[in-house]
Amino acid sequence: MLFTHPSLLHTHSRHLLRRRHHHHHRRRQPPSPLLHRLLSTLSHPLSHPIYTIWAANTSLGKTLVSAGLAASSLLSSSSPSKLIYIKPLQTGFPRDSDSAFLYSKISHLFLRRSPQSTLLASNHTLNVSIPASKSSKLTTGSGCSVGELEENGGTECGKGGFEGLGFYEEKRVGGGEEVRNELVCKTMYAWKEAISPHLASEREGATVGDSDLLDLLKRCLEIGVGSEGFGGSRVLSLVETAGGVASPGSSGSLQCDLYRPFRLPSILVGDGRLGGISGTISAYESLVIRGYDVVAIVLEDHGLENEVPLSSYLRNRVPVLVLPSIPKDPLDDLMEWFDESQSVFDSLTGIMLSSFQKRIDRLHEMPKKAQEIFWWPFTQHKFVPEEKVTVIDSRCGENFAVHKVKDHDCITQMFDACASWWTQGPDAALQTKLARDMGYTAARFGHVMFPENVYEPALECAELLLEGVGKGWASRVYFSDNGSTAIEIALKMAFRKFLVDNKLLSDLPQDNTIESSIELKVVALRGSYHGDTLGAMDAQAPSPYTGFRQQPWYTGRGVFLDPPMVSMHDGVWKITIPGKMNAEDVILEDTSFSSRGEVFNKSRDDSSLVSIYSSYISQELLQSSGSRKLSHAGALIIEPVIQGAGGMLMVDPLFQRVLVKECRNRKIPVIFDEVLTGFWRLGVESAAELLLCQPDIACFAKLMTGGMIPLAATLATNAVFESFVGDSKLMALLHGHSYSAHALGCAAACNSMKWFKDSKTNPNLIPEQNLLRELWDTQLVEKISFHPAVQRTISLGTLFAVELAVEDNDAGYASLCATSLLTKLREDGIYMRPLGNVIYMMCGPCTSPDVCLRMLEMLYTRLDEFKHDKIQKTSKI
Amino acid sequence: MLFTHPSLLHTHSRHLLRRRHHHHHRRRQPPSPLLHRLLSTLSHPLSHPIYTIWAANTSLGKTLVSAGLAASSLLSSSSPSKLIYIKPLQTGFPRDSDSAFLYSKISHLFLRRSPQSTLLASNHTLNVSIPASKSSKLTTGSGCSVGELEENGGTECGKGGFEGLGFYEEKRVGGGEEVRNELVCKTMYAWKEAISPHLASEREGATVGDSDLLDLLKRCLEIGVGSEGFGGSRVLSLVETAGGVASPGSSGSLQCDLYRPFRLPSILVGDGRLGGISGTISAYESLVIRGYDVVAIVLEDHGLENEVPLSSYLRNRVPVLVLPSIPKDPLDDLMEWFDESQSVFDSLTGIMLSSFQKRIDRLHEMPKKAQEIFWWPFTQHKFVPEEKVTVIDSRCGENFAVHKVKDHDCITQMFDACASWWTQGPDAALQTKLARDMGYTAARFGHVMFPENVYEPALECAELLLEGVGKGWASRVYFSDNGSTAIEIALKMAFRKFLVDNKLLSDLPQDNTIESSIELKVVALRGSYHGDTLGAMDAQAPSPYTGFRQQPWYTGRGVFLDPPMVSMHDGVWKITIPGKMNAEDVILEDTSFSSRGEVFNKSRDDSSLVSIYSSYISQELLQSSGSRKLSHAGALIIEPVIQGAGGMLMVDPLFQRVLVKECRNRKIPVIFDEVLTGFWRLGVESAAELLLCQPDIACFAKLMTGGMIPLAATLATNAVFESFVGDSKLMALLHGHSYSAHALGCAAACNSMKWFKDSKTNPNLIPEQNLLRELWDTQLVEKISFHPAVQRTISLGTLFAVELAVEDNDAGYASLCATSLLTKLREDGIYMRPLGNVIYMMCGPCTSPDVCLRMLEMLYTRLDEFKHDKIQKTSKI
Repeated sequence: MLFTHPSLLHTHSRHLLRRRHHHHHRRRQPPSPLLHRLLSTLSHPLSHPIYTIWAANTSLGKTLVSAGLAASSLLSSSSPSKLIYIKPLQTGFPRDSDSAFLYSKISHLFLRRSPQSTLLASNHTLNVSIPASKSSKLTTGSGCSVGELEENGGTECGKGGFEGLGFYEEKRVGGGEEVRNELVCKTMYAWKEAISPHLASEREGATVGDSDLLDLLKRCLEIGVGSEGFGGSRVLSLVETAGGVASPGSSGSLQCDLYRPFRLPSILVGDGRLGGISGTISAYESLVIRGYDVVAIVLEDHGLENEVPLSSYLRNRVPVLVLPSIPKDPLDDLMEWFDESQSVFDSLTGIMLSSFQKRIDRLHEMPKKAQEIFWWPFTQHKFVPEEKVTVIDSRCGENFAVHKVKDHDCITQMFDACASWWTQGPDAALQTKLARDMGYTAARFGHVMFPENVYEPALECAELLLEGVGKGWASRVYFSDNGSTAIEIALKMAFRKFLVDNKLLSDLPQDNTIESSIELKVVALRGSYHGDTLGAMDAQAPSPYTGFRQQPWYTGRGVFLDPPMVSMHDGVWKITIPGKMNAEDVILEDTSFSSRGEVFNKSRDDSSLVSIYSSYISQELLQSSGSRKLSHAGALIIEPVIQGAGGMLMVDPLFQRVLVKECRNRKIPVIFDEVLTGFWRLGVESAAELLLCQPDIACFAKLMTGGMIPLAATLATNAVFESFVGDSKLMALLHGHSYSAHALGCAAACNSMKWFKDSKTNPNLIPEQNLLRELWDTQLVEKISFHPAVQRTISLGTLFAVELAVEDNDAGYASLCATSLLTKLREDGIYMRPLGNVIYMMCGPCTSPDVCLRMLEMLYTRLDEFKHDKIQKTSKI
Repeated sequence: MLFTHPSLLHTHSRHLLRRRHHHHHRRRQPPSPLLHRLLSTLSHPLSHPIYTIWAANTSLGKTLVSAGLAASSLLSSSSPSKLIYIKPLQTGFPRDSDSAFLYSKISHLFLRRSPQSTLLASNHTLNVSIPASKSSKLTTGSGCSVGELEENGGTECGKGGFEGLGFYEEKRVGGGEEVRNELVCKTMYAWKEAISPHLASEREGATVGDSDLLDLLKRCLEIGVGSEGFGGSRVLSLVETAGGVASPGSSGSLQCDLYRPFRLPSILVGDGRLGGISGTISAYESLVIRGYDVVAIVLEDHGLENEVPLSSYLRNRVPVLVLPSIPKDPLDDLMEWFDESQSVFDSLTGIMLSSFQKRIDRLHEMPKKAQEIFWWPFTQHKFVPEEKVTVIDSRCGENFAVHKVKDHDCITQMFDACASWWTQGPDAALQTKLARDMGYTAARFGHVMFPENVYEPALECAELLLEGVGKGWASRVYFSDNGSTAIEIALKMAFRKFLVDNKLLSDLPQDNTIESSIELKVVALRGSYHGDTLGAMDAQAPSPYTGFRQQPWYTGRGVFLDPPMVSMHDGVWKITIPGKMNAEDVILEDTSFSSRGEVFNKSRDDSSLVSIYSSYISQELLQSSGSRKLSHAGALIIEPVIQGAGGMLMVDPLFQRVLVKECRNRKIPVIFDEVLTGFWRLGVESAAELLLCQPDIACFAKLMTGGMIPLAATLATNAVFESFVGDSKLMALLHGHSYSAHALGCAAACNSMKWFKDSKTNPNLIPEQNLLRELWDTQLVEKISFHPAVQRTISLGTLFAVELAVEDNDAGYASLCATSLLTKLREDGIYMRPLGNVIYMMCGPCTSPDVCLRMLEMLYTRLDEFKHDKIQKTSKI
């Protein structure tokens, strides 16, 4: 029976089904399927188990395994059940059609085993290349019905090189009254030649882009939703890949990369032949290092007991099942083989179902367990009820995959707009690359002792740091674990340099008589933040983080200056000069700018602000050292341009430039805390470039490792280093952590530093200018700055921030005012975290401006509602 | 020509060639080839390039590639050259013999291409299974000559299931006068059946253990040494594996794991057939995640352009070469194919040579570059000349592979006896497992935001911590990056708990009026060390690490007690009671012990020391709080049992137990710093078990991640946690680092926690007692404690330490007295670092006691020389 009027995708409204056909076909380019994906809607249901069937090679019987599982599901169980079989890519069509094979074999098996019951079976091929279509028509003469096909994810005639053939067949099998079992077979894309999909696509002029393919697959995965409620029927979906795990798909992307956003649990069909142990293990490992969970391996028996070494390799954690030999006779209808294999497939089905159930149970218990045993940093546990805990199942590039339960369990994607505490930057392609390199580096080095030693990742990392963020000034790299330790090290460096330069040290290393009366202070800006360990805390002005309850040992050991701030409001960039400065003589044009570029312009060195800044700084430094004779300002520490934890405050770069100059004049070593700002966070490799001046010491961390693992580096000039060279070990810098310069961190850093600054991998890079293109739509940012709910906005590099206009007593770090706004944005798929009444979105250096635009649009919409809510609330009072 | 008197391994003296035949054959067990390897002597030369030829599957033409490379090396170059071909495992013998194939084909090619020159070619099969031997004899009738065979790595007749057939053939090819080119072919082990080596081994009763195989391979790799000097001849060695990359070897270990200690650079023979892209990529990835460097991929053309997607996947960084189709006709002598392929093999040879040269150049420049740009922690750079810098090429389990230049460049292995700052523990099998898991976790998660979220590795890690080291007392886990941050967090926790318990906080979170006059101190032991950040430093007594030059902000904020120490000297464990204690009433039997076990015995609670300890502690606590009214001891912090950085000092566990009790009585929260001692370091999972008491807070790091990457955890009781729960965010613990609970660290921790405590993976574990067996030979330790050069010894769990007897002014951290001793031990293959005049050896929880014994023996020998040197030096003065 052949129908031309399928309607199995009825749950979807038409507008969801519009598809983009302007994908860029990038054959022979590095495959980066998800590089520029718009805010992903790649959710998939967990209402029933969905498995991918992979194989170690072609022709290992993937389709027989699918069929066996289908038989087990539909025929072995007494309860009603539904099996959805999806073949995304089919070559050799129509002669080869795995979905047609299933459709036919299962029907036969059904009649053979359960003739009293009834099975509704269908087979549908949605998109067929024109050559394949032609030879199909020759065979079947079927036509093309545009409207309905479109609705089903099929293409209208000829579009994109595909035809929606309307290749649909359906039948009722068996003699029962009531349909209790259902088989749905779908081929998504089919080509004529029996070669790899990427070759067939090229030769037949019909390539499907990765996004389109995933969108259609997403819709196919939703077919089972709702069915499970109906009559208690059991649903199982299978997605059968083409060829081996790393065989290219239509666009050339490897299938294991292509399907990664769904990260479906997997069955691997192994190889029972000579050499098959190796191929099976390697295929397994390719899946594993892409983050897939392989639930079982199944292979055909070839008398070689390949399952024995496989089980041993897998330490019995992944079951290995063995299928009877498959008859080689093409005339064999395989019915006996299926009968013989039934118990194996029943076991396999059992494993799949129980693994699925285990996963669901775990996902459900996770929030509660987390609440019970985690002690989250910076979190008042009292404010986090179980239902507010987010279960992150995985990450793919910039997106989290999050478990949610609405009508049913599902996995949905959210853009990680807090960049997981400003660490993130990799796109999906870099993540895959880093994963392989983490495996390599762990296997090659693990961690090895650093002092007095050298090994490749540490050396290359140091070289790249000095050629990159340290270019032109730094000559030494000191590794540590995080921003906080990098700062503690920087302070120790700066103080020593200051003491040596100012001849404040006695000649004997162990004689502390002079030194004990010296009090060293750090020059720092109010609102700055340099970390949570005591030394880093002491270098910052009192703040919510430094209270007595937090750290009774805190004593701000600083000369804390009030910096002038810059932000955009009502479309204008403006400088706010602190009250303490004598700003009477300022020329008004020097404090407001029509574009951000002007704020950073070198010509501002002629501004009337220079002398105002300069005299304020001089006065403060004088006061601090005047108060006590042996009190010295021994270091300057600043976050260049953006003070992050302080609330994404943008400091006037001119002020920081003047400050650096004033400190240099006084032989005070200059530290730049670039933990947040380094590595393209602000659109340039190092934020020092924006200040147009260089430090003596600078600290880097966060994005340095491509958002993988902790690693920090404190860079210093040779002059700083020299102040630690001497004839005693006690002169050396005696600070270190167990994992100093650990190989994995260094390797990740090497990779990401290179990735971000290479225009072949980072499409946002403007190589000739060595900066990122504008990521946040200038017009929309301006529009937001006019919004009545908005106090100020900042957009710079990967950062966009908004300070919400609130009543004074609701400002600051402890403010909860942004909560309702952010809750709604999370529903939109944007995961943000507030800094009190400041909210921000942070993307990666490679994120497409299209994605940023979409996020800004969503924010704008939600800001309107937020303002509305607030007005309503206020009017009620 | 057939000779029975080979003598190609003449560089080796007979005693080197004695081989161990008592290997344990562990088929169907987790393969752990290197778990119990004695101090490895697996060095290999870098005097000439040595490559491994791997393949993505069987029958892809590995041997043709070897032959083509041999032809290119021996025939294309005008300079004299030598090609060494090694086939470690050959099945199907004698019908299949890849070395015989090379021997024959290259001879033919030589005659065809360079009849005027001369080639000396030989082929030697060293060990043959008895069935294979029988069928060989049928074919060739060759005999067995025991003596010479043994010398050549061949087995005498019948031993271990192998026969050393004396299967040696040699010929001179070509008409030249002088032998300018040489081909050496070796088959190390051969079996009759043409199946996988592990099956053939089993069926033919001839299995070679991994150690034996590697030892023989090592000697084969040395064949080329010295030749390169002779007439400027170029040498190239090829090691051709059997089957695919992950095909099992004779013992069942996967070949990619088996050969890993050499980590030879690799050529991968890919698959040009349908499905071959996937198989090639997966095989490549299996090599990569074991730390191999794949220099090129070469595959046969099957008209599918598999090289295109492969190059794209590899981003053109690894060249992919394509060979012409191989004639399928078995009668084809392949001469034409070799001619056609010549240019490809010439290119491949060129790539291999230049990659080798690049590696050598890099290894040579690394020490200098490191010296120029690194700033090593805890290192006086002035003391580290270029020649003292160690180049670590890789790690395999407990061993470093180090580049050395003596007579020639080589890679030698050294036992990492400093456990790379006490972090290391994994054996080679765990390292492989972790590498795969690092890849998986990086691909699945990268890093994701922790607060208010939950994801599997973090949750499982917290669960395992609470079930393991936190069992019985802890209920919350706070993650951070290293020991230092874990301590800072612990102090913040303890102080808050103390303030709440003692009602020292005002009700308003932001009102600090009462608090500002409170001075909180920490109770700590002299000689303890808790990290390098300021808060951790302030919790320790003045030491070389805390001087003004190091951190001008340091102020010891502690009540610092003098602890009684325990150590073994002259065979007796003794307690040294500090002078400050009133020890008049002590019973002498209470201070010395015949075994270490007695020191930890619970019955010591009845010792006369209890009241001495107790009154000393009371007195010190009273004095400190009495001095100023608002001064409080707000926390106790101790390193249980072993004070590491202080010099591997063993504190009397009874004293620590009494101290904990005294603090508890005063409501002072108790912190255990288990950064060094946790996770089996001292033979038990947590050192608290040795103290027989539990803390309120404990810090863990180092070994927690299996020595992979930084991660720390501060565990706390629920009561501690509750003191941070309140109605304001400002009540929460506002401390965190960007990578809090990063997924890779948590995943590594889950793996290693489970690995170490499972007797299936850790052969040292005594499950019923939940402790490790004695790793350091008790008798030899005792003997060392009698040595005149030794002041004291400590052996406990994975730690063995010796304090060298020195003059007083040469003791302490800055002492260089151990340098000469350690330099010699490094020559022996033991990599140690001193703590002043204290030296120590640290192994992993899974390290074989045999390895520890060998190290102790070497130490003992070197101690004798050391004492001798010292006496000589003294007598000269």
